[in-house]
Amino acid sequence: MSRTLVIKTGGGKAINVDAVVADVAQLWNDGQRMVLVHGGAETTNEVAEALGHPPQFVTSESGYESRRTDRKTLEIFEMVYCGQLNKMWVEKLQTAGVNAVGLSGLDGRIFEGRRKDKLRVRVNGKRLVLRDDWTGTVEKVNTDLLNLLLDAGYLPVLTPPASSDKGEAINVDGDRAAAMLAAAFDAEVLAILSNVPGLMREFPDESTLIPSIPAAKVNDFMEFAQGRMKKKVMGAAEAVEAGVGKVIFGDGRLETPLQSALNGGGTHIE
Amino acid sequence: MSRTLVIKTGGGKAINVDAVVADVAQLWNDGQRMVLVHGGAETTNEVAEALGHPPQFVTSESGYESRRTDRKTLEIFEMVYCGQLNKMWVEKLQTAGVNAVGLSGLDGRIFEGRRKDKLRVRVNGKRLVLRDDWTGTVEKVNTDLLNLLLDAGYLPVLTPPASSDKGEAINVDGDRAAAMLAAAFDAEVLAILSNVPGLMREFPDESTLIPSIPAAKVNDFMEFAQGRMKKKVMGAAEAVEAGVGKVIFGDGRLETPLQSALNGGGTHIE
Repeated sequence: MSRTLVIKTGGGKAINVDAVVADVAQLWNDGQRMVLVHGGAETTNEVAEALGHPPQFVTSESGYESRRTDRKTLEIFEMVYCGQLNKMWVEKLQTAGVNAVGLSGLDGRIFEGRRKDKLRVRVNGKRLVLRDDWTGTVEKVNTDLLNLLLDAGYLPVLTPPASSDKGEAINVDGDRAAAMLAAAFDAEVLAILSNVPGLMREFPDESTLIPSIPAAKVNDFMEFAQGRMKKKVMGAAEAVEAGVGKVIFGDGRLETPLQSALNGGGTHIE
Repeated sequence: MSRTLVIKTGGGKAINVDAVVADVAQLWNDGQRMVLVHGGAETTNEVAEALGHPPQFVTSESGYESRRTDRKTLEIFEMVYCGQLNKMWVEKLQTAGVNAVGLSGLDGRIFEGRRKDKLRVRVNGKRLVLRDDWTGTVEKVNTDLLNLLLDAGYLPVLTPPASSDKGEAINVDGDRAAAMLAAAFDAEVLAILSNVPGLMREFPDESTLIPSIPAAKVNDFMEFAQGRMKKKVMGAAEAVEAGVGKVIFGDGRLETPLQSALNGGGTHIE
């Protein structure tokens, strides 16, 4: 049994979904053990607007931005991540000959974590404590269920939300969930595909791409991460610290996004 | 191993979801092997309206009404069935102590069938052939995957769509999918819970409830079925013919909907 490959792909319009599917199908059919995790923030924002419940973002006291997840937002989040996008990935993989099984972190508590019952945030500079909020952090991965599926020939296609320790749905960051997953599997590689070529010294100047980062120094590179890249770098740091062989930030817009990343493209952290 | 119990529950507002969950949890924790299938037509209609793509219904040449499922409708269908509602059932079951796993028929091709690539229908009396339509009928059930989950202690919570033989998502009738599932499992009981007390001789007069139907005579009772009850009776006929011990049409609005049905309430076909 080869070591597991964990792939996290963004869900935005810039991602070349068909190319990611083709790359995944080729590796899978060559016998590579793998798990796919996908996001969906951009589409969730659009659907939330269309349903008259526009997205709100809050900033934690430590400076990270996250989605305000009241109960209605959680429902919209599940519609997009678990319905529209998870089944899109599964359908595309099935038609490409991969026996994919789409699951959220709630199912079988694949991703289990702690709900932040009081969320201390800043909104327009003001400090607030949110109580009706359904967010949290993944602390545990149900590798038993995933290995059961993998051993029987199914490719797991995973998405947030996760489950709290009480079984409640909680919105968790997909990049950090994928990092926890890669750590739990002692994965050979965690490849994170997004709509940028990798980590850049001077975002968004793509000529300043950082091709490689020694694992021990990853925290020193946090200063270059902008916006959503912050949680990817944080996830990468957690993953390599937990023993994952390599984390790659790859360009999901390419014609062969996964192969390019595995063959040296993007930012390699090892 | 006891014989399997298959439960199909509607997704409408009249269904007492928490009571269904409580009944399922009690039976599951008592060791009953079971699979839950849910619907979602009413919510899909509401979301389709809200997203500016209102539902359309067409009538087949044999007189059955079904949802016009163009690609956009399929996406909305997946948002509601696989996202909003499937994860609602899983979350409620998880918080009730049941390790539920929510899957669509597309995942691992749990429900596989034939896509009707030309759909001959009548719309306002006119005959039409629809080609951009994603509907079909379940012909095969992946009991291997479901038994894998059941044997490992997970309760499968299933929903349409199904997979075509090419891996495409197809909208299938949930009642008939549940009937195929019950047949594939050689189930002891298929309980179909909806927002009526069972089959009535004079719909909607609940005092005309038909308490029992001999399995051999079920087709004679088709004349009493109105609207969505038609496919339930058709599914029941298919299920008992395939060897399912008993099909029950139970009232999903009650305080103990499943227990009432199993204890003699509703319409029993055996």
